[in-house]
Amino acid sequence: MDARPESRDGKWSRRKFLTEVGGGIAAANLAGALVGDRAAAAANEATAATASASPQLKVPDAPGKKTGWAIVGLGYLAIYQILPAFAKCEKSRVVALVSGHPDKANKLALRYGVNPKNIYNYQNYDSIRDNPEVDVIYIVLPNGMHAEYTVRGLQAGKHVLSEKPMARTPAECQQMIDAAKKADRKLMVAYRCRYEPYNREAIRMAQSGELGKTKVIVSEHGFNIGDPTQWRLNRELAGGGSLMDIGIYALNAARYLTREEPTELTAMSFTTPGDPRFKEVEETINFQLRFPSGILANCSSSYGYDSQNRYRVVGTDGWVELEPATIYSGLRMRIHKNNLLEEVQLPVRDHFALEMDHMSECVMENKEPLTPGEEGLRDLTIMMKIYEAAKSGRTVKL
Amino acid sequence: MDARPESRDGKWSRRKFLTEVGGGIAAANLAGALVGDRAAAAANEATAATASASPQLKVPDAPGKKTGWAIVGLGYLAIYQILPAFAKCEKSRVVALVSGHPDKANKLALRYGVNPKNIYNYQNYDSIRDNPEVDVIYIVLPNGMHAEYTVRGLQAGKHVLSEKPMARTPAECQQMIDAAKKADRKLMVAYRCRYEPYNREAIRMAQSGELGKTKVIVSEHGFNIGDPTQWRLNRELAGGGSLMDIGIYALNAARYLTREEPTELTAMSFTTPGDPRFKEVEETINFQLRFPSGILANCSSSYGYDSQNRYRVVGTDGWVELEPATIYSGLRMRIHKNNLLEEVQLPVRDHFALEMDHMSECVMENKEPLTPGEEGLRDLTIMMKIYEAAKSGRTVKL
Repeated sequence: MDARPESRDGKWSRRKFLTEVGGGIAAANLAGALVGDRAAAAANEATAATASASPQLKVPDAPGKKTGWAIVGLGYLAIYQILPAFAKCEKSRVVALVSGHPDKANKLALRYGVNPKNIYNYQNYDSIRDNPEVDVIYIVLPNGMHAEYTVRGLQAGKHVLSEKPMARTPAECQQMIDAAKKADRKLMVAYRCRYEPYNREAIRMAQSGELGKTKVIVSEHGFNIGDPTQWRLNRELAGGGSLMDIGIYALNAARYLTREEPTELTAMSFTTPGDPRFKEVEETINFQLRFPSGILANCSSSYGYDSQNRYRVVGTDGWVELEPATIYSGLRMRIHKNNLLEEVQLPVRDHFALEMDHMSECVMENKEPLTPGEEGLRDLTIMMKIYEAAKSGRTVKL
Repeated sequence: MDARPESRDGKWSRRKFLTEVGGGIAAANLAGALVGDRAAAAANEATAATASASPQLKVPDAPGKKTGWAIVGLGYLAIYQILPAFAKCEKSRVVALVSGHPDKANKLALRYGVNPKNIYNYQNYDSIRDNPEVDVIYIVLPNGMHAEYTVRGLQAGKHVLSEKPMARTPAECQQMIDAAKKADRKLMVAYRCRYEPYNREAIRMAQSGELGKTKVIVSEHGFNIGDPTQWRLNRELAGGGSLMDIGIYALNAARYLTREEPTELTAMSFTTPGDPRFKEVEETINFQLRFPSGILANCSSSYGYDSQNRYRVVGTDGWVELEPATIYSGLRMRIHKNNLLEEVQLPVRDHFALEMDHMSECVMENKEPLTPGEEGLRDLTIMMKIYEAAKSGRTVKL
């Protein structure tokens, strides 16, 4: 029994934390995340010993080389999605944490087997350049900090994966792209949906001609946002409102489902007067896009309505719909064709693990990421035009 | 055995016709439609005779007074929907037919028990004024003929129900409204969905606050239109393309679900170059509406994509969706609230019977219809603005 008060407090805190975090995560994953490769080794041994008893059990190959990741910003997304996802990664492992809250970083380091010497804060962040264990930095900070921490990470000689939106403005995106070029490092934007099975299948279908020629894409993305004090509602930190945070999914989907770039757009916005949440950023913004082939998109984005997370690709001969379309898990796909409506179930995969492994593969094999900085810049450029169209009430050409 | 060739041909034709018509209609309804009140009487007698054997069978009351209807225009809608619907009416019965095709009219008269003397053509249509059996005229002609035949019907002293869109232009709508006032007759537009259970329940929910405050309405209405020679693709007869025919459902739904009138709108249109179907009218037109309370609507209308027939009302605390939303039967309703998604099933009712009985009730009780001429005029006025916005690329104020 350890009698030191600090340590006791630490244990209590950790237990509470585990309970909260563990709710949605399978025990096996927790074990894997906590003890890392040793768990896999032990599992292999145990399997060998009982091979005759369980001849059907297929054991995955031992992982090959993994890149080392530093997670910058330990908020909800990092704690509940990204850090647990490393247990599902084949090519990525977490080796460092960067946070302004040492207590949080210490707890998570213990949980995920991160060496305490690899915990950084925002002051000594640049010294990460001297840490050879870190190959890739994942920026999971508020939007307004993406550019600075990406550029600093690149200047420290590391590859960078930045959460979306890439930054607040096209100018910031360009700075990030320039910094990556100068440092000769990879820069990727975390367009998670491009790496998971449902969205990839929808893209394939839209391109294959199975639904005929795509005519219209409709998409609604939004939710009823809570706490008025959160960074998402602060213009300096967020760069904008629902469009930057959640409407970007509708925009990006319209682009990846068509594989075209919009040529013009219109938009209409509404923000409830007097709502304490929307003093600085917009509540709802709907927008229409026109693509070169004639495809039109009708999109809705809001911080003010009950959760919407959907798109439908409507072709001449059928349609495919994802709802939910872009959340972290539990996506569902319906296809309508030849008077038949069917639901298709695809393998359950961890989106973040797939995304991070893609980046690791690009780093290891010196390939360009599927969603490089230029992809983030394109969305930002279009989003600025959407704001312009909503303000002017005119069609904006791109 | 009747040896006259004409008669034999007639029988063959009629048999073929019955087979085609009967496909989607329950045998009981056919019987009711063919022999009218006598069938009800026979059913009553049969029930009385077997009362002790079937004590649970509830027999509906005998119908009261019914208004007499003339159907003008014997196309698909009249033959397959409206005429069969009289069997479900409590207050309406078909007593006259107006058609340019005597063969068609004769066959349908025989089928639905219409006295052959009550068959009119477009030349002697005005003499319907001398037929006291006819109370109401239902205009089921191509859009471009609505105004003329409505005005002539009103001038003949009859009440008129016109199919939607009410006419090709607001000016035509105004002529119809003026003619009704002058003749002191009722004028109603066939906004069928306002009279059937699913749409009425969606309206009630949207107004009740059960979903919180309505924020956004999205609706897609369209289908992949066939035969390039049909009247719907002829500007003179149709007045416009998909918007006039099917997009009007999305517009009208946005209005009846909000119970507000839009104050401004934007639109974006696309028509496939060289498509033989779209030489005169638009293929796809998407539009956005702003309502006074801040509700925004995102609507899509097309003659070029796989059937879409849907709307969703998204509130702060939940949503209700109809899909299909506005077709003749088989509507489905889903409600999302408190993290529960449920499908609600409402009584199956014949939309046309409900609509016609509403008109009959207004006539018998001298009440204003729920969807009078002014309602049709409002949609036409807004549709003209949607075309204007699509053309100019600017927000149009209303």
